[in-house]
Amino acid sequence: MARQIVIGVVGAGENARAADIRNAFALGSAIADEGWVLLTGGRNRGVMDAVNKGAKASGGLTIGILPTKDRRTISVAVDVAIITDMGSARNYINVLTSDVIVACGVGGAGTASEIALALKSGKYVVLFNSSKESGAFFKKIGRRLVMASDSVSKTIDVVRLLLSKRESARRHEQ
Amino acid sequence: MARQIVIGVVGAGENARAADIRNAFALGSAIADEGWVLLTGGRNRGVMDAVNKGAKASGGLTIGILPTKDRRTISVAVDVAIITDMGSARNYINVLTSDVIVACGVGGAGTASEIALALKSGKYVVLFNSSKESGAFFKKIGRRLVMASDSVSKTIDVVRLLLSKRESARRHEQ
Amino acid sequence: MARQIVIGVVGAGENARAADIRNAFALGSAIADEGWVLLTGGRNRGVMDAVNKGAKASGGLTIGILPTKDRRTISVAVDVAIITDMGSARNYINVLTSDVIVACGVGGAGTASEIALALKSGKYVVLFNSSKESGAFFKKIGRRLVMASDSVSKTIDVVRLLLSKRESARRHEQ
Amino acid sequence: MARQIVIGVVGAGENARAADIRNAFALGSAIADEGWVLLTGGRNRGVMDAVNKGAKASGGLTIGILPTKDRRTISVAVDVAIITDMGSARNYINVLTSDVIVACGVGGAGTASEIALALKSGKYVVLFNSSKESGAFFKKIGRRLVMASDSVSKTIDVVRLLLSKRESARRHEQ
Repeated sequence: MARQIVIGVVGAGENARAADIRNAFALGSAIADEGWVLLTGGRNRGVMDAVNKGAKASGGLTIGILPTKDRRTISVAVDVAIITDMGSARNYINVLTSDVIVACGVGGAGTASEIALALKSGKYVVLFNSSKESGAFFKKIGRRLVMASDSVSKTIDVVRLLLSKRESARRHEQ
Repeated sequence: MARQIVIGVVGAGENARAADIRNAFALGSAIADEGWVLLTGGRNRGVMDAVNKGAKASGGLTIGILPTKDRRTISVAVDVAIITDMGSARNYINVLTSDVIVACGVGGAGTASEIALALKSGKYVVLFNSSKESGAFFKKIGRRLVMASDSVSKTIDVVRLLLSKRESARRHEQ
Repeated sequence: MARQIVIGVVGAGENARAADIRNAFALGSAIADEGWVLLTGGRNRGVMDAVNKGAKASGGLTIGILPTKDRRTISVAVDVAIITDMGSARNYINVLTSDVIVACGVGGAGTASEIALALKSGKYVVLFNSSKESGAFFKKIGRRLVMASDSVSKTIDVVRLLLSKRESARRHEQ
Repeated sequence: MARQIVIGVVGAGENARAADIRNAFALGSAIADEGWVLLTGGRNRGVMDAVNKGAKASGGLTIGILPTKDRRTISVAVDVAIITDMGSARNYINVLTSDVIVACGVGGAGTASEIALALKSGKYVVLFNSSKESGAFFKKIGRRLVMASDSVSKTIDVVRLLLSKRESARRHEQ
């Protein structure tokens, strides 16, 4: 291994829609197939849990950034559990650590905070099947940092594009 | 003094509109007149700076939760500067510490992250002159926690109402 | 008010010695008499609670940086409760926010972490009635940043000296 | 992979002694040989850098918890770089995430803060070739949580023992 590419996936923990859960599993599997490390909020709920299970089904490496010290809340599909005991402040770590962030499905306030923190930090965000209101709002405040997708394969294509954009931006800085 | 009521005000640091800056000053002054402590992100920019100056003009107490150790970025109108060195993770502290949060004017990604973190934590948020997209999005994810206002006096009225709601909710818990 | 001087006091939360509790109360009172703001970890236990009560007895302003969202654990003598929900990571905020830190009495691992984080951040620490082992260890790693005292009045004298040293160092930087 | 065992290694970043650097490399290699994940503060300095290089030389997985967003400061031997932008508050994450912490050699204030935060959180700490003052102080405040060692192989033996102790304690809880 050398330095790994890390893709962060965020989405509803509670009340996730069945379609979002199915997509999360397929997305995790596709991320692992690309050889990328999967990063999530690490809990055994909703999108987080499903995307980790998908990644493990394809043999990927999964990192979870946990909000509390309660180890019973960790997804069984997380390989390395980073324990922060910092509640939702851990969302900031999630986005800084990820090379690109994918918001999978329609999330709630936690997901919104992660998208906003990502944009604040200059990170690319892919909205995969987001709500109309979410798309309109984040496109307005994030502009060129925000992309949309409506399938797992398109999401992977957009992530690949954003990784190469970022790479070329870094090369220009040097 | 006994335990103080803390009102958090968030808004654009950079690129704040002139009207939002004027409203922030008047809002800070009105918050101090109510005897509430003002809490902000503490920097010497935009809405943060103006609301602190307004509060000091009326003799209020101002607390700033700073993202970095760089003391040159602190608003001169902050009495007590809490230094976190935690970047935007300090936004989580801002919302947890505030009894009610007011988003003053049209903010960017930083403001959005604070509103989202507030809603995630079950805090009331008043959107004072927000954008149409912001109102639609946060009303959708925050429901009864989100209120809107379009003047300083209405904002103060709504905050007063929310403080009493919260108080009666706490009394029911006991 | 202008920017306030903030003195952080750390010490045992649990199992504090009776003498350390008494000294904490007197120290808080003396800090308030100097017109300094008192900062602590904010809980209703041990040295934290006593120093806040002393400060309020002399009409001082008290800020508590709390580790959890549980409001029942806040000292009644804290005026402004900063809620971090970050467990012991809040110790870093305590030391960065304080102009000088006083460790009152013989503390445990929490107190030791605050002294170490203070020294790491280049802050002055006064060990007021510390243990022999603590004095030897922190003097070794902190050198000129560590001073010792054995009474409230000497502690205040040392803090005054350190504030003036810091002030002159800042003036040289400009 | 299933849930991985994580061993945290802390030590001097600057001014590390040559012997401590050599031991750190050998320790990293031995940790990887055991199949444990290595966790450090992630920077390209001193003990952190050496222990990561040792672990990679033996094909281990290395996680770094970084204090800042500056990617130029990351050790080349870190596989997954967790970016916190939280300065020394990241030390709390280091110790919570580790199953056992090893302090390698004579460290400064940063290392002391990690040992203290570990003890505060009830984590086992192995002092491998620490100073006399450090041993005396941390043994006093940490009691049964603190063990000492004076070679890489003894350190690994002690870590193995502590992992089994912890395991049996967890089984008793259930």
